[in-house]
Amino acid sequence: MLAIERIESTSNSKIKLAAKLHSPKHRKAENMFVAEGVRLAEMAARSEWPVEFALISDSAVNNPRAVAIVEVLQEKGCPVYQVSDQLYGKAADTVTPQGLLLVMSLRIFTWQEMLKVNEEETVAPLIVVLDGVQDPGNAGNIIRTAEALGCSGIVCLEGTTDIFADKVVRSSMGSLFNIPVMTGVSPYELLDVCHENEVPLIATAVDDTAVRHYLADYVSPCAIIFGNEGNGVSAQLLHEVDQKVYIPMSGKAESLNVSAAVAILLYEAFRQRSIL
Amino acid sequence: MLAIERIESTSNSKIKLAAKLHSPKHRKAENMFVAEGVRLAEMAARSEWPVEFALISDSAVNNPRAVAIVEVLQEKGCPVYQVSDQLYGKAADTVTPQGLLLVMSLRIFTWQEMLKVNEEETVAPLIVVLDGVQDPGNAGNIIRTAEALGCSGIVCLEGTTDIFADKVVRSSMGSLFNIPVMTGVSPYELLDVCHENEVPLIATAVDDTAVRHYLADYVSPCAIIFGNEGNGVSAQLLHEVDQKVYIPMSGKAESLNVSAAVAILLYEAFRQRSIL
Repeated sequence: MLAIERIESTSNSKIKLAAKLHSPKHRKAENMFVAEGVRLAEMAARSEWPVEFALISDSAVNNPRAVAIVEVLQEKGCPVYQVSDQLYGKAADTVTPQGLLLVMSLRIFTWQEMLKVNEEETVAPLIVVLDGVQDPGNAGNIIRTAEALGCSGIVCLEGTTDIFADKVVRSSMGSLFNIPVMTGVSPYELLDVCHENEVPLIATAVDDTAVRHYLADYVSPCAIIFGNEGNGVSAQLLHEVDQKVYIPMSGKAESLNVSAAVAILLYEAFRQRSIL
Repeated sequence: MLAIERIESTSNSKIKLAAKLHSPKHRKAENMFVAEGVRLAEMAARSEWPVEFALISDSAVNNPRAVAIVEVLQEKGCPVYQVSDQLYGKAADTVTPQGLLLVMSLRIFTWQEMLKVNEEETVAPLIVVLDGVQDPGNAGNIIRTAEALGCSGIVCLEGTTDIFADKVVRSSMGSLFNIPVMTGVSPYELLDVCHENEVPLIATAVDDTAVRHYLADYVSPCAIIFGNEGNGVSAQLLHEVDQKVYIPMSGKAESLNVSAAVAILLYEAFRQRSIL
């Protein structure tokens, strides 16, 4: 590990910036967010996401895994600062901070990247669209599942929870850094892009016109829309989609948690795509 | 709605009891827990779970849905008390209380009930075993999924999060009241019961002896074990199970969230059982 500059003052602009980024308003204004913890930092450092700077606490300097990440970051030319455990606590938001925190810039993805699964383009795009998912734990869980099952990207429509919030980034277990994401997308833009690129839209819905989820074709390009925890996919979008699907169930429950529905539906897509 | 007795004092024993039950220690000592909110109360009131008493706030008396639940409870002979919104706030744990809260007793299930799916016994038992799942949101989500997909029961081994905690009950969306559950079960007891009743044990695991999850047989009786978020199923249990399975994935993620793994695996069981 190269020599590390120390930050001593609570009024240092970097400490203040990190602390501010736990609020949605400041994340939006700065186009930055925080990844806290050794595992997340590891995933971020290995990814193509831009790291603005890192903070390591005095305690974490004794953790070889944290030091290894710092070395990777230093090789990339990313500034790293050492701070007291107390000062670190001011910058972090977690109850039991792990002593390694990255301030990251948002990465901007294009629709072109969204629609491209791999260089060879042997697999058709499979986009996950979140329409108003509110719970940060659900959003993070969905990102993790979508990445693990080979989806090409995640589109968050306007009104969806901020996926750069600490809780979402943590729940994604760093998968956020391994899949293209777009946020604040309007339903009109989604519809336009999907029509232009001949990507059929499939929505989860409970109505008479919905078919059992495994009867839909997920081998061809598709975008699958998952809705708000309470209200499902918006009526406006449901009106415009190419197909509606539902997950057959037994039991008395009216519905599954949206993250469970995503897991079941994406696994059916994964199965059909025969990557099994 | 019948006339409702009022509670005015913060030192009333029922208010104090409800407030105490948000802590694990008191839940354990009293063998009781709290279900807060209109939807949860509705599910609880319709179930066979014993409701000790209900509290309704002055505001909620104007909510016809809450009043309908109170009527159901009164018919069952369950005491209902009206309290000021302020006093209600002291008994509830939620940030935005909905004005209807039930204090419930634990229902004790036997292994016999666990192993019986329906009266006709046309379907083989399918038990979900949680071995150290820690996150309350995950536990609630899993209970909801297991109930929705027709599992016969949920067994929580020692060291699993308390499924009667407010967050778990809420996340289960009331499914907790529609499926047999056992808690604090020792691994030895699980192994004994499963061996005696010829219920093979299947564990999710990432090791060389694990097979792809869809190659296992879930049509016959089985108990499927899901492990802790960080460490998976305990080594001790893995050593004793009849079969190990893993969920094939693509992507860079090392694993899925346990609630997503449960959804995928139980859906495969549900599919094999052809209830589709």
